Amino acid sequence: MGTVVVGFVPKPEGEAALDRAIEEAKLRGARVVVVNSHRGGGELDDVESARVDKDMESVKAKLDAAGVEHELRKLVRGFEPAEDLISIADAAGAELIVIGLRRRSPVGKLILGSNAQRILLDAKCPVLAVKADS
Amino acid sequence: MGTVVVGFVPKPEGEAALDRAIEEAKLRGARVVVVNSHRGGGELDDVESARVDKDMESVKAKLDAAGVEHELRKLVRGFEPAEDLISIADAAGAELIVIGLRRRSPVGKLILGSNAQRILLDAKCPVLAVKADS
Repeated sequence: MGTVVVGFVPKPEGEAALDRAIEEAKLRGARVVVVNSHRGGGELDDVESARVDKDMESVKAKLDAAGVEHELRKLVRGFEPAEDLISIADAAGAELIVIGLRRRSPVGKLILGSNAQRILLDAKCPVLAVKADS
Repeated sequence: MGTVVVGFVPKPEGEAALDRAIEEAKLRGARVVVVNSHRGGGELDDVESARVDKDMESVKAKLDAAGVEHELRKLVRGFEPAEDLISIADAAGAELIVIGLRRRSPVGKLILGSNAQRILLDAKCPVLAVKADS
């Protein structure tokens, strides 16, 4: 069974990536691995960590409802999200990575973040980039 | 019938994008629209133009062999490739755009070009980015 790895953040683009990952997994007969990555340290206190757990519960509910095989990975290892996503995709032999992108800023500035660029450039498998309303 | 739009350049990453677009079109029961975009002017003399036509013949042969419905678009309109690709994808109501990315340079520099960034940020549909060996 193939694996679709998706980076999840509780934002519109993260939800769009999750929805798309579910669709792609169904299309390919694959399972979904959801990666929720945090650097840890000052960034993730107890309150924040509890909020993340709650977010992941709603992710799990969505995956259950979709009826796709899945695994949720919450990582707090001090790595950048790009590193966590790529290492998990590699370990799983993923056939596809799905990421969410923000749209341009109101002034039209290019805002493709460094994490997105690293995933696009360094992933061993194809990367599907979606936006909140694409 | 859905449409998968792919930006083609006669380079390893362009061939990888074409191969992947064919696979995705088969998976989705969609047709493939291949876009080969040139700014024109000094960039595209007669010799170069003839070479492009030859490249597109081999693209056509690959699509015929794959048995997917397809259309080839060679554009010389003075636009950046990103603009041509996005406008064609929009006009076709594409469900997916496939683009090829170069890998990092030998010194590891981020080399995600401005065309790739624009397509990723401005396309209305999801964008699948592949590298030559992904």
